[in-house]
Amino acid sequence: MAFDSNVKIGVLGGGQLGRMMIQSAIDFNLDVHVLDPDPNAPCKNISTSFTNGSLTDFDTVMAFGADKELLTIEIENVNTEALKELQKQGKKVFPQPEVIELIQNKLHQKQFYAKHGIPTAPFHEVANAEEVKAKKDFLPFVNKLATGGYDGRGVQAIRNEEAMDKAFDAPGFVEEMVDFEKELAVIVARNEAGEMKTFPTVEMVFHPEHNLVEYLFSPAEINSGIEEQAQKLAKEVIEKLDMVGLLAIEMFLTKEGKLLVNEVAPRTHNSGHQTIEGNVTSQFEQHLRAILNWPLGDTTTLWPSAMVNVLGEDGFTGDAKYEGMSEVIAKSGVHVHLYGKKLTKPFRKMGHITVSDQDMNELREKVNFVKSTLKVKA
Amino acid sequence: MAFDSNVKIGVLGGGQLGRMMIQSAIDFNLDVHVLDPDPNAPCKNISTSFTNGSLTDFDTVMAFGADKELLTIEIENVNTEALKELQKQGKKVFPQPEVIELIQNKLHQKQFYAKHGIPTAPFHEVANAEEVKAKKDFLPFVNKLATGGYDGRGVQAIRNEEAMDKAFDAPGFVEEMVDFEKELAVIVARNEAGEMKTFPTVEMVFHPEHNLVEYLFSPAEINSGIEEQAQKLAKEVIEKLDMVGLLAIEMFLTKEGKLLVNEVAPRTHNSGHQTIEGNVTSQFEQHLRAILNWPLGDTTTLWPSAMVNVLGEDGFTGDAKYEGMSEVIAKSGVHVHLYGKKLTKPFRKMGHITVSDQDMNELREKVNFVKSTLKVKA
Repeated sequence: MAFDSNVKIGVLGGGQLGRMMIQSAIDFNLDVHVLDPDPNAPCKNISTSFTNGSLTDFDTVMAFGADKELLTIEIENVNTEALKELQKQGKKVFPQPEVIELIQNKLHQKQFYAKHGIPTAPFHEVANAEEVKAKKDFLPFVNKLATGGYDGRGVQAIRNEEAMDKAFDAPGFVEEMVDFEKELAVIVARNEAGEMKTFPTVEMVFHPEHNLVEYLFSPAEINSGIEEQAQKLAKEVIEKLDMVGLLAIEMFLTKEGKLLVNEVAPRTHNSGHQTIEGNVTSQFEQHLRAILNWPLGDTTTLWPSAMVNVLGEDGFTGDAKYEGMSEVIAKSGVHVHLYGKKLTKPFRKMGHITVSDQDMNELREKVNFVKSTLKVKA
Repeated sequence: MAFDSNVKIGVLGGGQLGRMMIQSAIDFNLDVHVLDPDPNAPCKNISTSFTNGSLTDFDTVMAFGADKELLTIEIENVNTEALKELQKQGKKVFPQPEVIELIQNKLHQKQFYAKHGIPTAPFHEVANAEEVKAKKDFLPFVNKLATGGYDGRGVQAIRNEEAMDKAFDAPGFVEEMVDFEKELAVIVARNEAGEMKTFPTVEMVFHPEHNLVEYLFSPAEINSGIEEQAQKLAKEVIEKLDMVGLLAIEMFLTKEGKLLVNEVAPRTHNSGHQTIEGNVTSQFEQHLRAILNWPLGDTTTLWPSAMVNVLGEDGFTGDAKYEGMSEVIAKSGVHVHLYGKKLTKPFRKMGHITVSDQDMNELREKVNFVKSTLKVKA
């Protein structure tokens, strides 16, 4: 596609990912129209138009898509039947509805990896809690729901027979608990012309309790062999999916130095937020380039960066107040991204902070400072 | 001021400077309300609210300011009487109306420099064309209007007696034509607490005909002594103005190695656009930090960057088409900023491109590529 700003883009989802995509789209004069069920979604005030409505309702998505030329998503939980219909009508839909559909179902994702020889942790399909409980020999394992999980929900570790009581009573799978060295992520972009580019591998640190990315470092501290493998694996996955757009691939690096694909998201991702400041091109611009079939941008790291999620403090619900923010922004190389959410709730993602520094030790110190200083209260 | 996103900010002017300021304000959850006489101003679709109205009409500015807590500008040509009145009512107005008023008048600017011992080219006040013509002994000189000049208008070189015919017939001054080595600019920020920070000095290259910045490099190729002087001079000017906000100071570096202040702008400036990609903190974020009395951001250069104005091609008026854009964005380290203007006109500022590279020679090559490749036609 030649460069043309006059493409009417519709985005399913108006959260923080859409918001940061719009911040980038402004640079290209791109009109971005948004559909979201929350009347106060983060995109509301900055989108070209904002439609309040369900992402999973066929008619709502069809009506939203009717006057758009290009549709994309910022969340997977959307009505893919409507997207398929819009695609049939000649509209561009990236990522493709079939890919979204596959990825909506974690079991199908796993089966896809198995079928295509993409390394992933061994697993067994289960239909209900009874079937989970029958997998005693497979303990310890992780029990995952096929559908409906998000941000740490629908995933639980089952370490012993006693814990079996909490098994999900719904279709899904049990997966070998990987004794991993690190959790890594690679974001890869692919446009219609087939051009592909990966971002340097990042290293995630999860909150021990809430199963949310607590912070991450970029680039990951891994040797060049692992880096090369991770990048290659990311390209392999997006190619096998034949997907156009941006794909985030979460991986385990096992203690034996093997990479296993954990799960993927066919969109901009929490593990790529630091690219706004840390890399030549941000993931948000890269997503736009990919779906518009423009040349992909250079993903080189400008300087090591860390992304710290800003979560609502436990015990506080109400109008958000950002305690310690003045101290945080007084530090060099600290960039604030608040998501336009007035109301804080325990562990709600209110924003993120990118921290950058040429020195990795300084970087870690600044991350700790941000984490211990900034509190979202009400 | 402690960090508080709930400040109702009003901006006089809704052009590209306001647009880029809003892109930065989004990161801090700041509501930005805009007043502009153009119903299709670049800020229109991305501001929290947009008011279509005159910036120079007392009543319009008073009405716009009535429900705001903090007022700022993105253009100097505004009604300062209304701003003074709003300030009296207890609203914060940064830059202060008195500073805007002083700077609106280029003659008063020059007199201010002379009074405060700030180095500037020698000049003589003139009331009309007759008085310009009487300055034969001062030839060659530059004839400048006291008020009404903008983007190269209201300024003309008069090199010999024959050229005297075109002398402006309005109040202003004639200024010694400086035989300069380079044109430099420094942007300095100052908050209410008195904290000051300068951006590294940049080097401007003007279009030979149109008297507009055609491109600039950052950091300037000057020795550390000159750099230090330039930074010191910028701080001196903002302190003597007792100004809060962002001040861009254009300077001549003479062949004798002296710095002379040419003129200043009390706002974000074309000579600071490359800070978005090239520096740790952008001028737009720094402006917000300064007027909100937040700690100022680190201005360190991340990598050498150039800013190329994207001007409407001569001979084309109508719906803008960006010829060559695909080729331009395929280059590494090229960032596009389009200003949301549908209509192109000869030499209209449609956007800018930031080009970055660790190597200054590569940087210059990329600048030349962008300049020769990208054309705005209709």
